[in-house]
Amino acid sequence: MNGSSFGNYFKITTFGESHGAALGVIADGVPAGIPLSTEYIQTFLDRRKPGQNIYSTPRKESDLVEILSGVFEGKTTGTSVALLIRNESQRSADYSEIASYYRPGHADFTFDAKYGFRDYRGGGRSSGRETAARVAAGAVACALLDELGIKVCAYAKSIHNHICFDTKDYLAEHYSIEELVSMRDKSPLNMPDAEASARSEEFLNRMRKDLNSVGGTIECVLHGLPAGLGDPVFEKFDARLAHAMLSIGAVKGFEIGSGFGAALLTGTEQNDPFYTDEDGTVKKRTNRAGGVLGGMTDGSDVLFRVAVKPTPSVNAPQETVKKDGSSYTARVTGRHDPIIVSRAVVVVECMAALTAADALLGNLGSKLDHLKKIYTPEL
Amino acid sequence: MNGSSFGNYFKITTFGESHGAALGVIADGVPAGIPLSTEYIQTFLDRRKPGQNIYSTPRKESDLVEILSGVFEGKTTGTSVALLIRNESQRSADYSEIASYYRPGHADFTFDAKYGFRDYRGGGRSSGRETAARVAAGAVACALLDELGIKVCAYAKSIHNHICFDTKDYLAEHYSIEELVSMRDKSPLNMPDAEASARSEEFLNRMRKDLNSVGGTIECVLHGLPAGLGDPVFEKFDARLAHAMLSIGAVKGFEIGSGFGAALLTGTEQNDPFYTDEDGTVKKRTNRAGGVLGGMTDGSDVLFRVAVKPTPSVNAPQETVKKDGSSYTARVTGRHDPIIVSRAVVVVECMAALTAADALLGNLGSKLDHLKKIYTPEL
Amino acid sequence: MNGSSFGNYFKITTFGESHGAALGVIADGVPAGIPLSTEYIQTFLDRRKPGQNIYSTPRKESDLVEILSGVFEGKTTGTSVALLIRNESQRSADYSEIASYYRPGHADFTFDAKYGFRDYRGGGRSSGRETAARVAAGAVACALLDELGIKVCAYAKSIHNHICFDTKDYLAEHYSIEELVSMRDKSPLNMPDAEASARSEEFLNRMRKDLNSVGGTIECVLHGLPAGLGDPVFEKFDARLAHAMLSIGAVKGFEIGSGFGAALLTGTEQNDPFYTDEDGTVKKRTNRAGGVLGGMTDGSDVLFRVAVKPTPSVNAPQETVKKDGSSYTARVTGRHDPIIVSRAVVVVECMAALTAADALLGNLGSKLDHLKKIYTPEL
Amino acid sequence: MNGSSFGNYFKITTFGESHGAALGVIADGVPAGIPLSTEYIQTFLDRRKPGQNIYSTPRKESDLVEILSGVFEGKTTGTSVALLIRNESQRSADYSEIASYYRPGHADFTFDAKYGFRDYRGGGRSSGRETAARVAAGAVACALLDELGIKVCAYAKSIHNHICFDTKDYLAEHYSIEELVSMRDKSPLNMPDAEASARSEEFLNRMRKDLNSVGGTIECVLHGLPAGLGDPVFEKFDARLAHAMLSIGAVKGFEIGSGFGAALLTGTEQNDPFYTDEDGTVKKRTNRAGGVLGGMTDGSDVLFRVAVKPTPSVNAPQETVKKDGSSYTARVTGRHDPIIVSRAVVVVECMAALTAADALLGNLGSKLDHLKKIYTPEL
Repeated sequence: MNGSSFGNYFKITTFGESHGAALGVIADGVPAGIPLSTEYIQTFLDRRKPGQNIYSTPRKESDLVEILSGVFEGKTTGTSVALLIRNESQRSADYSEIASYYRPGHADFTFDAKYGFRDYRGGGRSSGRETAARVAAGAVACALLDELGIKVCAYAKSIHNHICFDTKDYLAEHYSIEELVSMRDKSPLNMPDAEASARSEEFLNRMRKDLNSVGGTIECVLHGLPAGLGDPVFEKFDARLAHAMLSIGAVKGFEIGSGFGAALLTGTEQNDPFYTDEDGTVKKRTNRAGGVLGGMTDGSDVLFRVAVKPTPSVNAPQETVKKDGSSYTARVTGRHDPIIVSRAVVVVECMAALTAADALLGNLGSKLDHLKKIYTPEL
Repeated sequence: MNGSSFGNYFKITTFGESHGAALGVIADGVPAGIPLSTEYIQTFLDRRKPGQNIYSTPRKESDLVEILSGVFEGKTTGTSVALLIRNESQRSADYSEIASYYRPGHADFTFDAKYGFRDYRGGGRSSGRETAARVAAGAVACALLDELGIKVCAYAKSIHNHICFDTKDYLAEHYSIEELVSMRDKSPLNMPDAEASARSEEFLNRMRKDLNSVGGTIECVLHGLPAGLGDPVFEKFDARLAHAMLSIGAVKGFEIGSGFGAALLTGTEQNDPFYTDEDGTVKKRTNRAGGVLGGMTDGSDVLFRVAVKPTPSVNAPQETVKKDGSSYTARVTGRHDPIIVSRAVVVVECMAALTAADALLGNLGSKLDHLKKIYTPEL
Repeated sequence: MNGSSFGNYFKITTFGESHGAALGVIADGVPAGIPLSTEYIQTFLDRRKPGQNIYSTPRKESDLVEILSGVFEGKTTGTSVALLIRNESQRSADYSEIASYYRPGHADFTFDAKYGFRDYRGGGRSSGRETAARVAAGAVACALLDELGIKVCAYAKSIHNHICFDTKDYLAEHYSIEELVSMRDKSPLNMPDAEASARSEEFLNRMRKDLNSVGGTIECVLHGLPAGLGDPVFEKFDARLAHAMLSIGAVKGFEIGSGFGAALLTGTEQNDPFYTDEDGTVKKRTNRAGGVLGGMTDGSDVLFRVAVKPTPSVNAPQETVKKDGSSYTARVTGRHDPIIVSRAVVVVECMAALTAADALLGNLGSKLDHLKKIYTPEL
Repeated sequence: MNGSSFGNYFKITTFGESHGAALGVIADGVPAGIPLSTEYIQTFLDRRKPGQNIYSTPRKESDLVEILSGVFEGKTTGTSVALLIRNESQRSADYSEIASYYRPGHADFTFDAKYGFRDYRGGGRSSGRETAARVAAGAVACALLDELGIKVCAYAKSIHNHICFDTKDYLAEHYSIEELVSMRDKSPLNMPDAEASARSEEFLNRMRKDLNSVGGTIECVLHGLPAGLGDPVFEKFDARLAHAMLSIGAVKGFEIGSGFGAALLTGTEQNDPFYTDEDGTVKKRTNRAGGVLGGMTDGSDVLFRVAVKPTPSVNAPQETVKKDGSSYTARVTGRHDPIIVSRAVVVVECMAALTAADALLGNLGSKLDHLKKIYTPEL
C-alpha cells in the first residue's frame, strides 16, 4: 500500500526512517512562481528540531534542509520540489534488546504483523522523526498561503489538566493570530498562556522524575481562507483536516468548532446566526461550526483541536512480550520527549497548511467562471 | 473537485440530490465471488429509512435499491457494482422562500460561495439523504467483511447528556458485539441501554415541543480485523476512519480508543501492556489504543466515537440573511428529524465497513509472501 | 482493482454490462454553470447507436439517456453528474453454448483467469456496448469544451487498405474541422472522403458475405486547446491520450503527429520550425509534433491516430477450446458489426474530449498567477 | 498538476532537473521482503549512463545511486524506498543564449506557456536526464519481477530504415528472451541483429557528420506474466503500457501485438486460435493480440513497440523565434546523442517493469479467493 502521500492536488510524498540515511519529501503540484528558499524552510524545521530545551529529546540533529529540485532563481518552477534532510545521529547503538521485544504503545508489533519484519532502529518509519519531512513540506505550503494572505497558527491548548486561557464556545475568539503567535513563542512548551505554561512546566518536571510522560491537546486556527474550499461529500474540508491530523503519530482525536461539545447542545445553540456587516459581507455571529459548513469553508476562521497521547517511550517498567511470545518487562531507555504536544505544534500547523493548499488548488475548477478567467480572459 | 469518491482500492463514487430523480453509487474494486442480493442491501437501507418512528422525519421514502451491474448469478463479478435508489418524495413544493435565504447551520451559503448557485430543493447534494448511497455501498462492503468473519456495530452512545452504560477507559469491553446489536435493536433510538434510551426519548419529546433539536455521540466497534491493516504514515487506519467519519454531514469530532481522554493520561496509563494468551497469540491487557498502533490494526477491536451535532433545521426563529444581504428571521419548516444521531448509526457503521474493506484490499500487497501465495503457489 | 474510472480532475466512473439492467456513468469534478441537457447528450449517443445502417449490428437499442443528478435548471451544479442508459435488448437467449467455450480474440478466457467466472451474456463488461457510457460522459466534456471554444473531430482515416485523402507530413492540414465534420457526416462509414468511403462500402459488403470482418484507423483533431495543457513527466498530454485510446476495446495502436513515421525521419525533418505570425503569436510552420511538445500542448492542433482491429466476432469457423480444455470449433453467431472503426469514431472523439477536459482542469493550478486571479482578484 | 507520479499501487514519484542538484525517486507501495541493493540498481543505471560509446552524449555522469530509505538488512521494508542520484556535470555554462530562444522540437516554448518561466539550463525537468530516476525505480520493479519469475527485455528494433531480424505477424517469436538479451548486448546500439546494427552504425556516423539525428523503434517483451493482469475498462494492461511509453520524452507512438498492422487484417487473420497443450494449459497458436485480451494479460508474452523520434537537438541551422517574438536561427550546440533509441531501450524496459509490478499488485484483490488465501488461510 502506498501510504506515504498526502493531498490530491498539492501532493506530498515522504520517505525516511529515524536511523536511516536521510528523511525527505517530494512536493508535487506546487504552482510555479512561489518564492522559496532553504532559509524559509529551515525556520519551520528549527521549530520542530529536538534538543531545544529540557522538555524535548536531547538527540542531536541539526535538521538542515537541502532543496534538490523544483526551485530556480528563488522561485518554484511548477515541477516537483524535492527536499532532503540528512540524519546525523545514527549512532551505532546496540539494538539487539529493542529488536527482541514489543514496546507497549509503539508500532513494533503491528509492523511485524504487516510486513513480516521491521527496521527496529529507533522506531524506523513510525518514529516521530518522520514528521520532519511533513514540516519541510508544510513550509512549501505556507509559502503558497503567504502569497494569498492566509495564516495558520497552532499552539498547545492543554498539557494534562493545565489548560490555556478561558474559551467560550470552544473558540479562541479573544485573540488575533498575531497575538496567539507572540504569546505562544514566549513559552518553551508552545503554550500561549504564561500562567498555564508555568504550571505545566512544573508538572512536567515532576513527571520526568517519575520516568513518565503526559498527553495534552493542540488547537489550530486557519485565518483568511476564502469561502468554498472543500467538497460537499467525501472530501469535506474538515474530513481532510481530520485525516491529516490523525495521520500524525500520537494523535487520538480531532474536533472542529464546538466538536464533542456539540453533542451537548441544541440546534438553536449550535447554529451560528448569519448577518451582513457594514461592508456588505455575510458573516456569522458565532463560530460553533469552526469555519466549515457542509464540508466547505465559510470564510470565517477554521478552528480545530486534536488530542495528543503521552509519549509511549517511558522508563518506568512495563509488561510486554518478546517476539517469541515469552513475557518481558520493558524499560524503554534512550532519548525521549516527556511530552509530544509541544514539538507537535508545528507539525499540526504544517499538516493544516498542506490541507489548505490542497483545497485551494482543488477548488480552482469549481465553476466555469474560473476556467473562463484563466483560459478566455478576453471574452 | 471530484469529491464524491471514497476509498483507494474498494472505491465508491456516489451521486444524487435530496429532490433529484435518484441517488446511487458505483462500488468499484469489489472482489469477484462475493454473494450479494438486493434483499441483503435492502436490510441496511431499511435501517436508515425515514419515518420509522416519531424521532425521525415523516418524509415518505421506501428507499428501494436496484442492482444495475456487477452482480451475476448472485455473486459479484469483479467489475463495478452500480446501485440505484429512486427518490419518491419529490413533491412540487414552493421553494421560493428557502431559495432566497441562508439557513443557519446549513450549507446554503457555502454552496453559493463555491459554485455560484445551488440546487435549493431541500438541501440538494448536502442533504442527509445523500447518506442513502453510502449505506447501499456499505452493505456491499459488509458482504465482503461477512465472508472474512469481520463484524461491525455502531450505536448511539449518548443523546445530549443521557449516556449509555458505564464504560471504563472509554471501552465497551463488557459486551460482545452480538449483545450490543441485540440491546441496540430494542431501542427506537439505537441506544443499547434501556434506561438511557427511555430518558432520551422523554427528553426528545420535550425538545420537539420546543421546536428544537439535540446532538449526541455514536460509538462503533470493528471486530475480527486482522492485524496490520492501514499504513504507517498518511494512510493510517485511524486517519482513514477519521476522514470517513468527518465526511458524514453532522459529525464534528472523532476519537479512537482513549481519544481526548488520552490528553489527561500519563504514558504508563495510556500504554496497553502486551501478553501472550494460552493459544500463543499476542494480545493487549487493555485497549486504550482503540485497536490501532502506529496507524495499523493490532488485532484487537477497533473502537471509536464520533460527535454528532443537533439537526440544524429547527422551527424556532433564527437570525440570518437573504441572498441580497438583507436580514431575515428564519423558521425552517418541513419534515426534519429532532435528532440525527439515531439514524446516523447505520451510516457510521457503513463508513467504517467501507474503510475496513478498503484497508483489507490495500494490505494485500504489503509483503512479497502474499504475492507468492497468489502468483506462484507451487513454489 | 478499480479500473472503471478515467481522469484525475474531470473524473468519470462507468458501469454496466451488455446484457445487464443498464449502463451509466458518474462524471465528478464537472465545473458548475455548464449548460447541459438530455437532448445534447442524446445527439452523441445517437451517433454511436447500433442499427443505423447495414454496417452496424442490427441489435435494437434506442440508448435513451436520463440525467439522474448534478444538473439543475439547465446547468451543471458542480456536484456529480449521473447518467443512465437502460438496456432494452436483453433477450432471454440461450447462452449455454457461448458460456462453455472461449471465443478467439475476445476476453472470455482472461475474464475467467482474473475473476474465476464471468458474465457470459454477450461479452458482459467487455462488450463494445460499454462505450455507450463513455460517450454519454464525453458529451458532458464536450459541453465544457464548447464553452471555451474548443472543438474535437474524429473520423475513419482508413478501412483496410482504403485510405482517406492524401495527407502530407501525416497531417490533415488541408481541411478545417468544420469541413472534416461535414465530409464525414455524408459517409455511412464516417469517412470524410466520398471516393474512399464508396470503395470501403463495396469491400465491406464482400467481407460480410465471407462472414469476416476488417480493421482500420481513426484520426482525431483537437482544435483550440490553449498551450500548456498536460504535465512534463508522467502525465504528458499525449501519454494521457494514448491511455484513453488504448482503453477502447479494439484499439491496438496509437500515434501522435508524425507518429511511427518519426522513426524514419531525421531531426531536421521532424522538428517544427517556430515563427511569429502577424498578430505576434508564436506558431509552428509544420505540425509533426502533433500539437504536443514535451508532453504539453503547444497551441496548435492536436492530431493523433489509432489502429482498430477487426471485429473479433466472426461467423467463419475458428479453432478454440472449451472451459474443460477440450477442443472446439467456434462460429460466433449473433448481431455483430462487420467493422468497429465507424461506430468507434464518436468513442474516440469522446475519450479525446474527456482527456482535454481533464487537462484543462489539471492545468488551473500551474502557476501562482492563476490562483491570484481566482482568490485575490483585487490585488 | 502533480504529474511526477506513475502507478496506482506500486507508485513512483520522481524529481530532478538536468542541471539541478540531484535526480531521484520515491517508490511507494513496494512489498516488504524483496532483496534490493545499490549494486543491483546500479546495473540498470549503468545501461542508461551517457558516454558509453560514440553514439551517446559525451556528458560525464557516473550516475551513482544511493538508497536513502525503505531497505533494511538487504530487503525492502514495505515503506517508501527513496533513491538519490547526484548530478555531477553542472558546469557553469553560459545559458544566456539558450535562455533567450525556443529550440524547435523541445519543450522550451510549452514550459514558458504553462509555468510563466522555465529552468533553461539544459532542458530542466524535460531533459532526457529525467529518465535516470525512472530507471532507478524500474530496477526496484525488476527486483520484484525477478522474485516471481517474470522477465522483461527491450531492444532497438529499427534505426531509421535499418530493421532487425525478420518477424512474422509482428512477433519476435523465433527467439527466447535470453537469446534476445545476449544478441542485444553485443551491439553498441542495443540492436539484437549484428548485420542491422552494423548498417545502423555506418548510417549514424554519416548523420553525425551532417550534424543531424535519426529516429527508430524499440520493441519489448514481457515474459512470464500470469493471466488476468489489468482491468477490463479504463485500466487495461495495454492502456497502462501505452501511457507509460508515451510518457517517455521522445516516444511518438505505441502499438501492441499486430498494432497498426491490425488495420490491414480481417477478423480471421487477427484472432489467435486457442488450443490446449500437453500439460492441459490453454494457449494461443499465434500472438497477434500481443498477450492482452480485453485489457487483461492472457498468459502469453506481452509484446509491444514504440516509435522514437530523432534527437531534437541538432547542430544544423533551424528557423525559430526568441522569447520577444523576433526570428532567430538556432544551432543547438552541446553534448547530445545522435540517436535516442539505443539509450532509451533500458527506459522502455523499466517503464514496462513498473507497469507490470503495478498490475501485479492491482490484481491481488480481483477475487474473494485471494483475500481468503491471505486472511483466513485456515478456512
